[in-house]
Amino acid sequence: MNRIAVGIEYHGSAFAGWQTQEKLRTVQGELEAALGAVADHKVDLIGAGRTDAGVHAREQVAHFETQAARSMRAWTLGANTHLPADISVTWALPVPAHFHARYCAQARTYRYLILNRGVRSALVGDRAAAIFKPLDQERMSQAAARLLGEHDFSALRSSECQAASPVRTIRAVEITRRGAYWRFEFDANAFLHHMVRNIVGCLVMVGTGARSPAWLDQVVQSKDRKQAAPTFAPDGLYFAGPYYDAPHAIPERSPAADWLP
Amino acid sequence: MNRIAVGIEYHGSAFAGWQTQEKLRTVQGELEAALGAVADHKVDLIGAGRTDAGVHAREQVAHFETQAARSMRAWTLGANTHLPADISVTWALPVPAHFHARYCAQARTYRYLILNRGVRSALVGDRAAAIFKPLDQERMSQAAARLLGEHDFSALRSSECQAASPVRTIRAVEITRRGAYWRFEFDANAFLHHMVRNIVGCLVMVGTGARSPAWLDQVVQSKDRKQAAPTFAPDGLYFAGPYYDAPHAIPERSPAADWLP
Repeated sequence: MNRIAVGIEYHGSAFAGWQTQEKLRTVQGELEAALGAVADHKVDLIGAGRTDAGVHAREQVAHFETQAARSMRAWTLGANTHLPADISVTWALPVPAHFHARYCAQARTYRYLILNRGVRSALVGDRAAAIFKPLDQERMSQAAARLLGEHDFSALRSSECQAASPVRTIRAVEITRRGAYWRFEFDANAFLHHMVRNIVGCLVMVGTGARSPAWLDQVVQSKDRKQAAPTFAPDGLYFAGPYYDAPHAIPERSPAADWLP
Repeated sequence: MNRIAVGIEYHGSAFAGWQTQEKLRTVQGELEAALGAVADHKVDLIGAGRTDAGVHAREQVAHFETQAARSMRAWTLGANTHLPADISVTWALPVPAHFHARYCAQARTYRYLILNRGVRSALVGDRAAAIFKPLDQERMSQAAARLLGEHDFSALRSSECQAASPVRTIRAVEITRRGAYWRFEFDANAFLHHMVRNIVGCLVMVGTGARSPAWLDQVVQSKDRKQAAPTFAPDGLYFAGPYYDAPHAIPERSPAADWLP
């Protein structure tokens, strides 16, 4: 039995999320079919993160087991010939039997791209979210700093979140700007359901002046979902990748194109 | 009579180009209908550049005449409520009666965005062209330098080009790279039909090693379209804007987001 890890990109808009669901078009479902066609047997795929409907991935990592002996190039290009245009396998790598795409991931990065200007864009489509009111960097950075470290994020998770514990550790939040574009990047050990979308909803309320930076402390401390902002749109949200221990040798991501889809 | 200039963005993939054509979906046609609805009379729009089918615009500039008295905000937001998602008016400005979007433009910029990696992208769609073989910066820059200045570009224009003269002046060619993305930017007084697409087709052949940088001299000197590379795909080609004399006060473009759609 061979265990193979793959890197995957997808444009999430036309998917009911990552996870296989009966009668729905999902990323996992499409990938299992494509890899199964290359393997010539049924493939069960385990992903590092289960993204919501509409959420994109710049680098999802997943693993599967196979009896088939194929080159890594055959897994990559073969899967792509069976995949629709909105999913692409970017690399494949043999991994040891103890590698697990989900359990071995020590951290995950999510990234929001937001276009902040007074008129809508004809070019970005659902590759960036749109905010029409000006955003204030200093206010948002102050608010974001309050999220760093270990917290009970009950106020910022969906009522449908199935995680046993609401405690997560945010290792870094980076808010940067280029022209009319803002990028919000979050590194955490793991994320609760809708956690990034709820955090960005709050940060945007602080950035437009509707709430103060200190309000975010109150939201977190309340542990009450109703205190937080509405869940932000999935447009512009990218799963930017899981992080593994170096011995796993998963390809490093190039940071150079971070501002591009 | 008031003369108004507008800045326009569009995602060109679903249009039969800029220019109004019977029974076809065109950018000019959609804009004339939308601005006409705001003006409450028929509007004739004159654009700075007539882009091909599939070509995007980051900044097209156009002007029209109207008897209607509207605020610039009303022209911009009003037009956008009548426009489809793939066109957006980004600004409007009153201009003097002698301003002409096409004839007053002293130069124009076109930009290609190319994703250069071994596997296809699920994210960029038709916002960038794809080249799978590695491109060589030095070779392409050497070739591009040969295009600077005034030349007879007969070898690099379409057989359907209707321009009276094949002579154009290229003021600058800039080839830059970020990660797997390349950007080719061309400034010229004006462009012939398919000129940018034919030039990029040639530069890519040089960049992949299929032709030498000096070959581009031969192509230009031959004045023979058959000597050049095939016309490159419109995916990833953006009209980045016309340039006018400062007295016209057309809004300056922000270079900050040049790498983003």
